[in-house]
Amino acid sequence: MNSRLVGVGVGPGDPELVTVKGVNALREADVVVVPVMDTMERGRAEATVLHYVPGEKVVRVVFALNERSDRGRREAAWDAAGDRVAELLRAHDAVAFATIGDPNVYSTFTYLAQTIAELVPGTVVETVPGITAMQDLAARSGAVLTEGTEPLTLVPVTAGAAVLKDALAGPGTVVAYKFGRQAHEVAEALRETGRLADAVWGSALGLPEESVRPAAELDETPLPYLSTLIAPARREGGRGGKL
Amino acid sequence: MNSRLVGVGVGPGDPELVTVKGVNALREADVVVVPVMDTMERGRAEATVLHYVPGEKVVRVVFALNERSDRGRREAAWDAAGDRVAELLRAHDAVAFATIGDPNVYSTFTYLAQTIAELVPGTVVETVPGITAMQDLAARSGAVLTEGTEPLTLVPVTAGAAVLKDALAGPGTVVAYKFGRQAHEVAEALRETGRLADAVWGSALGLPEESVRPAAELDETPLPYLSTLIAPARREGGRGGKL
Repeated sequence: MNSRLVGVGVGPGDPELVTVKGVNALREADVVVVPVMDTMERGRAEATVLHYVPGEKVVRVVFALNERSDRGRREAAWDAAGDRVAELLRAHDAVAFATIGDPNVYSTFTYLAQTIAELVPGTVVETVPGITAMQDLAARSGAVLTEGTEPLTLVPVTAGAAVLKDALAGPGTVVAYKFGRQAHEVAEALRETGRLADAVWGSALGLPEESVRPAAELDETPLPYLSTLIAPARREGGRGGKL
Repeated sequence: MNSRLVGVGVGPGDPELVTVKGVNALREADVVVVPVMDTMERGRAEATVLHYVPGEKVVRVVFALNERSDRGRREAAWDAAGDRVAELLRAHDAVAFATIGDPNVYSTFTYLAQTIAELVPGTVVETVPGITAMQDLAARSGAVLTEGTEPLTLVPVTAGAAVLKDALAGPGTVVAYKFGRQAHEVAEALRETGRLADAVWGSALGLPEESVRPAAELDETPLPYLSTLIAPARREGGRGGKL
């Protein structure tokens, strides 16, 4: 019988923001892989997993290298990580992979599934959805993501500031992901499009070092890479965040 | 002390797609309001809530009227619903409102919170995120929502077919919500933009009558109003849904 690789979204950091289905998938798996940085410090996915499954079932695999590491080292680490998961799939019926947020939204799991399709053909790949950072930031800040006929655009700032500006020029809600060093450019784009007053920014959601603030307070200080920004749709009466 | 109104996202229909935080919020509340249609049939939110809390704590309130009912009747029903929730807030410390999907994404809860701010000033409003239909459809169909630097645009088709076409003309992932009678126009927009082959459509996700199909199979038959469509980003090698 073919083994199963299950990508489980464990949410942004608060261990309670995992679904019941996600908890069951973690518990039913023979082993649970958690991606760790090469610094080996405990990440968000690992911390959440350890709330629900015993540590001896958890396999730490180095995936996320420091942003500044060179391409060659990143690729070598990636190959080693793929090989390790392939090895686990050959030894077990069900391997879960815990990913922060949702496994189908900017997740390492997408690439892992492609690598595994080559290394262990016939592996059955499944995913369990998870709460994304934009949803958690909306709940924590009081910024409604969408109502009525409003569109929503999700933009990774790594796609370039122009893509973000284009989206902000429109009427709908804009969510920006993966900025940090570009905090200044993001604030500038919000100012130019008249959206700075309503926008909210958050990082480390659900963790002790959580920060949820009006975007107008952003200055030139670099922010954590996993920062999230919501610029709510232009609404009658200007109802944006409640901060 | 002021009472709390907690909007709890209970996911698209599968009772396991509620978060642990959502289950706790439902259980800790004094009463749980579930919106029902004027036909009084059991809706998805109610069915999911009844998996976690005893029926005697659940209060059914008519919110969602038949799409064809006239404006006057809809407004009268809305006023009655707001009054009923206000009454519950005056009698209890914590009232939960269960909403399918996420309470900050096209949810009745947004309007309810505004109504309650007027009727019972001082009410503390909170939300607990929930899995949205697009996330569940991605998991069930194998269509990755976003990877790398791809943007994602969420468009309610009720905003007009032009907004949908504009989004489809771009390179990113497009998710269409709330169509049904416009299925033909959605299929036409996909065809014109060369995205029909990769797109997937779903309805009644997680329910016995679930349907998840390639969008290319859509014909002129009207679909359920709560239909969801994913047109994955234009990707090298054309990796879209796996159906």
